[in-house]
Amino acid sequence: MTATTDIAPPTPELSVDRWCNTSRPLTLAGLRGSVVAIEAFQMLCPGCVSHGLPQAQRLARTFGDELTVIGLHTVFEHHAAMTPVSLEAFLHEYRIDFPVGVDRHEDGDPTPVTMRRLGLRGTPSLVLVDRRGRMRAHHFGQVDDLTLGALVARLLDEEAPPTAQLVDPTGDHEERACDPETGCPVPLDDADGMGD
Amino acid sequence: MTATTDIAPPTPELSVDRWCNTSRPLTLAGLRGSVVAIEAFQMLCPGCVSHGLPQAQRLARTFGDELTVIGLHTVFEHHAAMTPVSLEAFLHEYRIDFPVGVDRHEDGDPTPVTMRRLGLRGTPSLVLVDRRGRMRAHHFGQVDDLTLGALVARLLDEEAPPTAQLVDPTGDHEERACDPETGCPVPLDDADGMGD
Amino acid sequence: MTATTDIAPPTPELSVDRWCNTSRPLTLAGLRGSVVAIEAFQMLCPGCVSHGLPQAQRLARTFGDELTVIGLHTVFEHHAAMTPVSLEAFLHEYRIDFPVGVDRHEDGDPTPVTMRRLGLRGTPSLVLVDRRGRMRAHHFGQVDDLTLGALVARLLDEEAPPTAQLVDPTGDHEERACDPETGCPVPLDDADGMGD
Amino acid sequence: MTATTDIAPPTPELSVDRWCNTSRPLTLAGLRGSVVAIEAFQMLCPGCVSHGLPQAQRLARTFGDELTVIGLHTVFEHHAAMTPVSLEAFLHEYRIDFPVGVDRHEDGDPTPVTMRRLGLRGTPSLVLVDRRGRMRAHHFGQVDDLTLGALVARLLDEEAPPTAQLVDPTGDHEERACDPETGCPVPLDDADGMGD
Repeated sequence: MTATTDIAPPTPELSVDRWCNTSRPLTLAGLRGSVVAIEAFQMLCPGCVSHGLPQAQRLARTFGDELTVIGLHTVFEHHAAMTPVSLEAFLHEYRIDFPVGVDRHEDGDPTPVTMRRLGLRGTPSLVLVDRRGRMRAHHFGQVDDLTLGALVARLLDEEAPPTAQLVDPTGDHEERACDPETGCPVPLDDADGMGD
Repeated sequence: MTATTDIAPPTPELSVDRWCNTSRPLTLAGLRGSVVAIEAFQMLCPGCVSHGLPQAQRLARTFGDELTVIGLHTVFEHHAAMTPVSLEAFLHEYRIDFPVGVDRHEDGDPTPVTMRRLGLRGTPSLVLVDRRGRMRAHHFGQVDDLTLGALVARLLDEEAPPTAQLVDPTGDHEERACDPETGCPVPLDDADGMGD
Repeated sequence: MTATTDIAPPTPELSVDRWCNTSRPLTLAGLRGSVVAIEAFQMLCPGCVSHGLPQAQRLARTFGDELTVIGLHTVFEHHAAMTPVSLEAFLHEYRIDFPVGVDRHEDGDPTPVTMRRLGLRGTPSLVLVDRRGRMRAHHFGQVDDLTLGALVARLLDEEAPPTAQLVDPTGDHEERACDPETGCPVPLDDADGMGD
Repeated sequence: MTATTDIAPPTPELSVDRWCNTSRPLTLAGLRGSVVAIEAFQMLCPGCVSHGLPQAQRLARTFGDELTVIGLHTVFEHHAAMTPVSLEAFLHEYRIDFPVGVDRHEDGDPTPVTMRRLGLRGTPSLVLVDRRGRMRAHHFGQVDDLTLGALVARLLDEEAPPTAQLVDPTGDHEERACDPETGCPVPLDDADGMGD
């Protein structure tokens, strides 16, 4: 896992069809000011079940309210096999209780929108977002806990941006938001984060 | 895991809706003469994924053609979450290549037919059937490999019944069969193996 | 682990300086009639500590009185580091309670006597001796539990030799013994089991 | 593992009879300015072999030159079984290559000097010392890697004391040293760190 410097780019916004384990949708813009760990997984990916998700559960348990842990169900194969009802049962049986969003599909592209925007190479992938919404680390595959614990602690110890509360004056923070300092995430409708 | 003696009862026949990893349906009657290990599981049962199924894969790899390993997908909860298409993807991703049957549901009973007939208490459960079709061991939960290896070896070393080749003179061995020595498995249509 | 056939050679006798966890010395001749598992180890061998010895403990626990499990401390390096007093503390801390013999050194040979006689390649090594005293399997490195459980069960199910009680009419069975059927183990004083 | 605040007490100095894996003795005073992790262990303690020492190896590998990892062989039982020659062989076989000191015994006390001074409850114990020589965390038993990684990162990110280079103007830093800010470690000759 390689941490990027503090001139890291803004993290593209999540595009999620449906949320589990939360009564209201989450957005990275709305979480500005917090450190966020995003665990991108597929419920039928063996490495996610044996390594990625247990590590995300440990992150949530270890850092408690300090860290926001989000699961992102980024189905890019076997789409008919991993429906929302299957996901709900999976989360229940594996006792995963942090919020999990279902990454949105569009235009018949097998790779879902957020996965493309974040440039993820596969599952499990772990993404760390700092208090200013910048993507500070991402990793495909296994990360060791010592390295990850150190990285999270350092992001937690960074100061929140002074204007965090002003991030989204227009109120449409559920779908997109511009931050005065870090810039704007790619709009949802016309970009995929991979270049055009 | 407790092995039962050689006066064990005949194993009730499988009642399967659909098979994966095999071009033709399997029945215990048709397998008479072979030792059979049945791994009853649900694809969203964590103990099955972490312990039961890996052990069944080790059984298949260790004993090769000597032992017939069968998976039985005995869904008794989250039925809508574990459809055949989900199961197919699951078997593919977890590289399970022994035959797997989907246990049949009937009459709105949440517990599937074969599971009831075998008297299984939950998943994962492992059932061992001897060369005469008798149910010689069954276990709910984890079994250690030393014990299981010993049990399988002893069943493999028992002689096949001398009339094994005469088991099913009428040819309908796919659905039921009577053995001169052990008796007849419960017919599929009117019994559940649990007593009436 | 490869099991040898029933024309396997007689197992050379143990040559042990000192025993732990038993009030009287053991010999293979004296154990004729029983199946014996010998775990050859060194207390400072990481693979012995993590795999070999825990497996020997599982063997003892799983098969109980049916199987005789013996540890053999075959020090062939770091001799000054693995003295009897160190071994005693090691067995205590790791809660190893089956009998353990200290393989004898002679003539300045770094490899101890029994280890040479048995032709062991290193530690951990596992040797299985049948009821007639024949060496039926030996393995250097890790063996999987399913394979080992099967092998032990099959040796346990073999009949004891009918003349087992006559094995050692002269009474000196602690040091050597001839079996009418399998022959005589190599005498302790003049052979090393490796050919002359 | 509980991290103490930055008003933590100075860490008592090490009292070591003999060092392995280093050509010159180490002292905490001489390491002032660095973050130090001390893994207190006994070579025949199963929890040290399976958990404590592998974690110390991961610490050394993960944080490299940033963190000083030291092993401390704190023998408080089976003294005759864990001699320096045994320890040397142990370190070689387990491929432990960070510096390891043998905690000094005195006055027939079974608990060695440094262990008493640090107030350790048993092995394995992990102690973290900050750049100013203060004992910032200590833990007996297992610590999880996420928590430990976070703790180490935070200590690494603290500034070194501005007068670090002045710590030991008298040059006898091998045995004791006073820091202008944190005070003096307990002298070796008259205290045991446990109160009098």
